[in-house]
Amino acid sequence: MLTREQNERLVRTDRGTEMGTLLRRYWIPALLAEELPEPDCPPVRVKLLGERLIAFRDTEGRVGLLDELCSHRTASLFFGRNEEGGLRCAYHGWKYDVAGNCVDMPSEPPESRMCEKIKQPAYPCVERGGVIWTYMGPAELKPELPDLEWAGLPASRVFVSKRRQMTNFMQAMEGGIDSSHVSFAHRFNMDDDPMHAGTAGLAYLKADTRPKFEVVESDGGLLIGARRNAEDEQYYWRITQWIMPWYTIIPPFGTHNPLGAHAWVPIDDETCWAWSINYHPTRDLTEAELTAMRNGEGIHAKYIPGTYDTLANASNDYLIDRQAQKDKKSFSGVEGIAAQDFSLQESMGAIVDRTKERLGTSDAAIILARRRLLAAAETAAKGDPVPGDQGAHHRVRSASVLVPKSVPFQEGAADALVVRDGEDFVSI
Amino acid sequence: MLTREQNERLVRTDRGTEMGTLLRRYWIPALLAEELPEPDCPPVRVKLLGERLIAFRDTEGRVGLLDELCSHRTASLFFGRNEEGGLRCAYHGWKYDVAGNCVDMPSEPPESRMCEKIKQPAYPCVERGGVIWTYMGPAELKPELPDLEWAGLPASRVFVSKRRQMTNFMQAMEGGIDSSHVSFAHRFNMDDDPMHAGTAGLAYLKADTRPKFEVVESDGGLLIGARRNAEDEQYYWRITQWIMPWYTIIPPFGTHNPLGAHAWVPIDDETCWAWSINYHPTRDLTEAELTAMRNGEGIHAKYIPGTYDTLANASNDYLIDRQAQKDKKSFSGVEGIAAQDFSLQESMGAIVDRTKERLGTSDAAIILARRRLLAAAETAAKGDPVPGDQGAHHRVRSASVLVPKSVPFQEGAADALVVRDGEDFVSI
Amino acid sequence: MLTREQNERLVRTDRGTEMGTLLRRYWIPALLAEELPEPDCPPVRVKLLGERLIAFRDTEGRVGLLDELCSHRTASLFFGRNEEGGLRCAYHGWKYDVAGNCVDMPSEPPESRMCEKIKQPAYPCVERGGVIWTYMGPAELKPELPDLEWAGLPASRVFVSKRRQMTNFMQAMEGGIDSSHVSFAHRFNMDDDPMHAGTAGLAYLKADTRPKFEVVESDGGLLIGARRNAEDEQYYWRITQWIMPWYTIIPPFGTHNPLGAHAWVPIDDETCWAWSINYHPTRDLTEAELTAMRNGEGIHAKYIPGTYDTLANASNDYLIDRQAQKDKKSFSGVEGIAAQDFSLQESMGAIVDRTKERLGTSDAAIILARRRLLAAAETAAKGDPVPGDQGAHHRVRSASVLVPKSVPFQEGAADALVVRDGEDFVSI
Repeated sequence: MLTREQNERLVRTDRGTEMGTLLRRYWIPALLAEELPEPDCPPVRVKLLGERLIAFRDTEGRVGLLDELCSHRTASLFFGRNEEGGLRCAYHGWKYDVAGNCVDMPSEPPESRMCEKIKQPAYPCVERGGVIWTYMGPAELKPELPDLEWAGLPASRVFVSKRRQMTNFMQAMEGGIDSSHVSFAHRFNMDDDPMHAGTAGLAYLKADTRPKFEVVESDGGLLIGARRNAEDEQYYWRITQWIMPWYTIIPPFGTHNPLGAHAWVPIDDETCWAWSINYHPTRDLTEAELTAMRNGEGIHAKYIPGTYDTLANASNDYLIDRQAQKDKKSFSGVEGIAAQDFSLQESMGAIVDRTKERLGTSDAAIILARRRLLAAAETAAKGDPVPGDQGAHHRVRSASVLVPKSVPFQEGAADALVVRDGEDFVSI
Repeated sequence: MLTREQNERLVRTDRGTEMGTLLRRYWIPALLAEELPEPDCPPVRVKLLGERLIAFRDTEGRVGLLDELCSHRTASLFFGRNEEGGLRCAYHGWKYDVAGNCVDMPSEPPESRMCEKIKQPAYPCVERGGVIWTYMGPAELKPELPDLEWAGLPASRVFVSKRRQMTNFMQAMEGGIDSSHVSFAHRFNMDDDPMHAGTAGLAYLKADTRPKFEVVESDGGLLIGARRNAEDEQYYWRITQWIMPWYTIIPPFGTHNPLGAHAWVPIDDETCWAWSINYHPTRDLTEAELTAMRNGEGIHAKYIPGTYDTLANASNDYLIDRQAQKDKKSFSGVEGIAAQDFSLQESMGAIVDRTKERLGTSDAAIILARRRLLAAAETAAKGDPVPGDQGAHHRVRSASVLVPKSVPFQEGAADALVVRDGEDFVSI
Repeated sequence: MLTREQNERLVRTDRGTEMGTLLRRYWIPALLAEELPEPDCPPVRVKLLGERLIAFRDTEGRVGLLDELCSHRTASLFFGRNEEGGLRCAYHGWKYDVAGNCVDMPSEPPESRMCEKIKQPAYPCVERGGVIWTYMGPAELKPELPDLEWAGLPASRVFVSKRRQMTNFMQAMEGGIDSSHVSFAHRFNMDDDPMHAGTAGLAYLKADTRPKFEVVESDGGLLIGARRNAEDEQYYWRITQWIMPWYTIIPPFGTHNPLGAHAWVPIDDETCWAWSINYHPTRDLTEAELTAMRNGEGIHAKYIPGTYDTLANASNDYLIDRQAQKDKKSFSGVEGIAAQDFSLQESMGAIVDRTKERLGTSDAAIILARRRLLAAAETAAKGDPVPGDQGAHHRVRSASVLVPKSVPFQEGAADALVVRDGEDFVSI
């Protein structure tokens, strides 16, 4: 439970807010690289942390991310002409390069020097792992480039999707670090998810539905251990990495299945992008896997065609199927892991009222994540380094391991919890 | 005309408001019994007086009405599993019985006592007359069970429907106690309504379009008399019962036709449920009558299929037919008694601005009803008994009678104005 | 750039605001005469300057414009019966004539004098040029009737349309007095507009894309000169008339083509009517011209059938065609002069934030127009005469002329800038 004031501090991310200042200290997944497929392609509207932006890829392939509204008379650059090294406003022809410099101002007399004085606000961008990332904070505090394992793999080993969720990013992310709900919301979907198939861990998961949680701080976020009984003097530990400010990595089900990961990024205070990634560090994804992912299976979602909006949504009660619920094909009646999550999260309201919740021991990770974010927001306000802004904080793995009962999980699994390039991850 | 402050007191019904406190002193028609057709059927969202609730029928057939959002992390119980004597949240499996007791908390360790400390807010429910009623006020002030005549009849003698109206409940109810508008808004629909057919009263009604109104207080509300000229030394009186806080009974047209009644219940401050009831105390409704009622005729309405929303609504200008208006088939061009009323009432805005109205003598009942409600709200604030909360206040009838000119209507019609079980009502 | 406070003064037009007080000093284009095609036809909802009104044509053909909501209980007169010399409310039958007098009150006793005390607010109307105009200001300050050239021509020489634009009227009008954008937003549409065909001016326009602007005050508004190089010692001047508070006349392309004009009228602060007029003072419009205009070509727009809402709109990204943009068939990818304008103007937001704009020399007319409106608002506050309220201010023409370089445009074109009845306008 939070006070109203704490909740406000946690969820507000516009420029000038505490959390907004913190989030602007990180590289931000802004859009899929495929949304800007080629030089001089149509510009794309992007909204992040409450700011309306326009993304474009210039003639040389460089990506620009500018304020959406032209500096002149504030018409949208969505209608702009993307040509010859810049984006030209369709209203009076002012033209900007990817850095926001005004490079042509044909509405003014040839002798005018006004063009030199105009700078369209612009954010730097990089492309990694099929994602265009941007940095919206002060230049002097720009962190190392994003270095999550999936962002550095060859394209053939990664699949990335995004979907719009109609909630604040925090309650979406809280679902991502909440290992407890898996045993309920997704209970009847464990077996049929191809990413889970035929793993020893699944048997432990089903046998012990009341895992004990232990959460410890990592350098860049949290290690969230869910402990279940196993044979002999061992525990079965599923360890989730939460990397600040918004990344999660799902513990593996066997080393033959791809890994799963997420990022939860504010569009504005009432909507967010739920990024979902599958990847395998040592092999290409198979065509069957890719087909399933493109089809919205597993952690991905089915879309309304032509959009990143989900087919199941509040307007259709998430296509709930009461018979499937009755028949124990779906715990909530909603189909699909992703939709099961976002249907429940959206039902809390766009911004959950955390003064009304009643948290239990299974919510320990959520409690700690909030605490770290609020503390980091204070750090960010001073301009100090913040957790999760270093490459080393990104180069971690989640794991599913057996650890002797007498050994703390973070010690027993220490080796499994860091990225080893070219080496497989650890999972029973 | 009211002051802005009086209007606010009259229309606001959220918990904590004056009118909200009054309305929570009565049993409230909450949903149709048919919406929960069988044990363990899907739960149903219900909103009353601004509160988001969830109704369900448990394994033993008992009805529960709980806060919609789970006490744990505030996910909606709409997605809950209704099984084995309770409603289980789909997020982490917390389970509640119809009284709101937490009866299972599988996300916490077996030794946890947290479950005992959790109480999901719940309201008691009863089923009567095809309606599930609830009581949302203080337990110690709970009134007698609702005892309107129609609520106590065998199912074969009653038909109940509800429709959502896009206004505050007050301006809907004001339409219900406003006998004057019948001569205008419904003028061309008198004859074709099967409930009116072939009655002597109809002739008086048409002959005298300027009735004189007399309104007197009853124990539970108001007696609204509309006086028209008749033969000899008699008046034709149509007497409407208004029972606090929201019930009306339409004066009869002959004893062979069913009676009509309404209830106007706040969903929130800008929408309400208009309940419409036809019933006959001494005979079953005929198949022809039931077919007409199900088809939205008379005081009932046609729906958008699968909803309780009306087919004629603001988005389609209530399917207004200007030719029918010209041809004197419909006074306003809108078809159907119910739609004629709600189209006009919705056109005033969701909450009518009563500082702008100009009331005449024909509005006497409205003026008095507002006064009684505002006075009762003050009484309720002190915790004292309020009018309309006793069975005797409910056991009344409306009537259509001839009374000698020298006799006050409430005396001349006294016998006709109370329920006599098994006996017919009084109507010429 | 304006301060926030200046911007607010400029855009707010509800009754009681500064700009609202100014605009209520002029005759206002309220609706198309064709919307009330015959006596006793259905009433039509009209919203102007934030006021909800109802227009009707009575049995004798007179037009009334009343407050939409009945004085009695505030039901909408949209459902009213238009018959026998007045509009009768469908709720309780109160009836009003075109001047707002209550002429029948059948819900009250025959002896009641209440009817005499009721006056439904009403505005005077006149019909001119296919438009019904109204005056919403103080009776004692009512100006001369609207006397724009197009309003006085025979019907066969004028075509008038209106479309709803989802912005404040000011930013729509700023587009109308902004000659600079034509060279960009409409660049690839110059040739195919039949209204431009085969004129000498077009060649100058294309040859010199950086016109020099000179703006001077006229009695009733502004003369906006756009100067381009021509042969010898001459300039090609395109001179736009802006007549306060919201009229523009487009400079002609040859005398054989019809003229174009606009009016930009607030519906409320976030929407406006864009009126578009084509006319020729000395000849009838041809069937081909009328067909094109009805089809939404030129300055007119294509509609969603049955509405005055545009087919291209924000919900469909204005039907943008990126290939047409690439192929230089449309500068912004949007089709049609009107849609090119309103797509950009709506993209600024419903009310543009003028604290963020960066104006150049090409924005001189906009700067001066704002200044004149703000000054006139102060004049109106004192009840003094305001520019644009006299017939002489209306009887002006725009022109396209060659003027010797040494002569100021307003002198060289003086004769061309006034209406000469029965004589052609001046255009090369």
